[in-house]
Amino acid sequence: MNHKSSFNGARVLITGGLGFIGSNLARRLVDLGARVVLVDSLIPEYGGNLFNVRDCEEKLTINISDVRDEYGMNQLIKRQDFLFNLAGQTSHVDSMVNPFADLEINCRSQLSILEACRKYNPAVKIVFASTRQVYGRPQYLPVNEKHPLVPVDVNGINKIAGEMYHILYSNIYGTRACALRLTNTYGPRMRVKDARQTFLGIWIRLLIEGKPFQLFGDGLQIRDFNYVDDVVEAFLLAAAGDESNGKVFNLGGDEHVSLKSLAELMIGCNDGGKYQIVPFPAERKSIDIGDYFSDYSCFSEIFGWKPKVELKQGITLTLNFFQKYAQYYWE
Amino acid sequence: MNHKSSFNGARVLITGGLGFIGSNLARRLVDLGARVVLVDSLIPEYGGNLFNVRDCEEKLTINISDVRDEYGMNQLIKRQDFLFNLAGQTSHVDSMVNPFADLEINCRSQLSILEACRKYNPAVKIVFASTRQVYGRPQYLPVNEKHPLVPVDVNGINKIAGEMYHILYSNIYGTRACALRLTNTYGPRMRVKDARQTFLGIWIRLLIEGKPFQLFGDGLQIRDFNYVDDVVEAFLLAAAGDESNGKVFNLGGDEHVSLKSLAELMIGCNDGGKYQIVPFPAERKSIDIGDYFSDYSCFSEIFGWKPKVELKQGITLTLNFFQKYAQYYWE
Repeated sequence: MNHKSSFNGARVLITGGLGFIGSNLARRLVDLGARVVLVDSLIPEYGGNLFNVRDCEEKLTINISDVRDEYGMNQLIKRQDFLFNLAGQTSHVDSMVNPFADLEINCRSQLSILEACRKYNPAVKIVFASTRQVYGRPQYLPVNEKHPLVPVDVNGINKIAGEMYHILYSNIYGTRACALRLTNTYGPRMRVKDARQTFLGIWIRLLIEGKPFQLFGDGLQIRDFNYVDDVVEAFLLAAAGDESNGKVFNLGGDEHVSLKSLAELMIGCNDGGKYQIVPFPAERKSIDIGDYFSDYSCFSEIFGWKPKVELKQGITLTLNFFQKYAQYYWE
Repeated sequence: MNHKSSFNGARVLITGGLGFIGSNLARRLVDLGARVVLVDSLIPEYGGNLFNVRDCEEKLTINISDVRDEYGMNQLIKRQDFLFNLAGQTSHVDSMVNPFADLEINCRSQLSILEACRKYNPAVKIVFASTRQVYGRPQYLPVNEKHPLVPVDVNGINKIAGEMYHILYSNIYGTRACALRLTNTYGPRMRVKDARQTFLGIWIRLLIEGKPFQLFGDGLQIRDFNYVDDVVEAFLLAAAGDESNGKVFNLGGDEHVSLKSLAELMIGCNDGGKYQIVPFPAERKSIDIGDYFSDYSCFSEIFGWKPKVELKQGITLTLNFFQKYAQYYWE
């Protein structure tokens, strides 16, 4: 059975559903015939944006609420077949400035969501969006799932706890859950207002605006990247298959490029642009992770997943999207 | 310089200071000439007991309050030279029944304590009491600090976060902190009311009361043990030396014994007693970790620490203590 057929007529809840990955996932699920409910708090500093689903909003349900609202979540979780749990505070810098907000969203809410599943919907299948940030500075490359967890910011610590709650509840209570540790994900509908979530967002914006963008350090830091459609496909595979239950998987990209090479590739895709190499701001230097790229063979072997969209193609698609819809993403 | 001289005249705050390890540490610090303040909430289910320091209460300050009281903690942390951070919810079973209380105490309070140190007392040295529970079921023995962290209960997850916050604040902000991962610790002043914190407490009590105690499973599970005086010494060493900053260390015992052998040893020390082998209660089976003993060579190499009190001697000292002071610990 093709994994896509699992979602035809299925009831699906997506937390953080108006955000970057959540909304791309929602659109895909709508196409596959799912009955999709999006939960999003639309906190301005986070990634939620109503425009992300404007052209399909009649085919899904938008529930504007916060995952910290325990009672609301209890009701929303009932009767769902799948829960894509993507709501989170994702800014590394913000987690250091306000560690308690990060704790509430990335730990406490996860625990209350899992308690709700355990009590009201133990048959639901959950896919949790985790992050490469749980590893901290790589001790070796590529980073596989056995790499020690030595996070360099509060966000990394709280995401570890959130991830571990999911695996624990899956193992102890049988509320089937798995986690995907995402690397740098980019594509249409990402947050491009500022550098809060990823440097890529602000680079795209400045490039389109014809302004120079900044590259911290020496620009030689290596990263891997996933185009959002590939990540959406991974979420669907992880949700549909029970082989994922109780497990944690890396996603990752095949192209390992320095930030400087990426900057030049983006300028090429954009037919022009400029960047400046500047020293690390202090608050970023202390939590920078150096080089990172991941080993995603574990997920690949079970689910046959491989990223399909090459970086150049993905960047071009992303630039085209934001050139067309700039007005909905700049403010 | 002997590490003990570090504490003469020093200002010391101990959270969980009326509890088992906290009170033994407090008594030792008073003997070493420290100016000791104990913070404890005396929550009945936890380990705090005013009798633990009754004979020396004029030589220290007792502040009955909860580490969740952020404003109170901000004041208490100011001007301290050392913070022994021992307050915690330690029951594995309770953490599954009420995961939010565990989160508040083991995560949120730790974060607010560290924020208070960062803001009001960045020169303080912190030693955090962590636990072998962070490892979950051992994948190999003895368990060293590189062992993967796969906790089997909410308590283990939250203790990981609490521990990681300490190391992070030490590395990023220079608020010097380290963590000791404790194994089964026993001795005078431990909680013996029930099996909430450790099976050893209730075994001691039932033995003294002349009642049979229960051993779950087949009794062949291996454990290691530390007598509380050895653990107190480890806390002092870790606090006095800056080599510990930003690091996590196992403590551990040299005698690796099955629970059945321990039961028989205890009956021997007590000149009589009985135990029953019974099947695991469901709520304990799912979070049982199998065999465990730890490799504490990392701490030993840096600080020359070794446990000194043999199990037989320690159990005898413990039984003698509780025989004498039963009335203060039974209710």
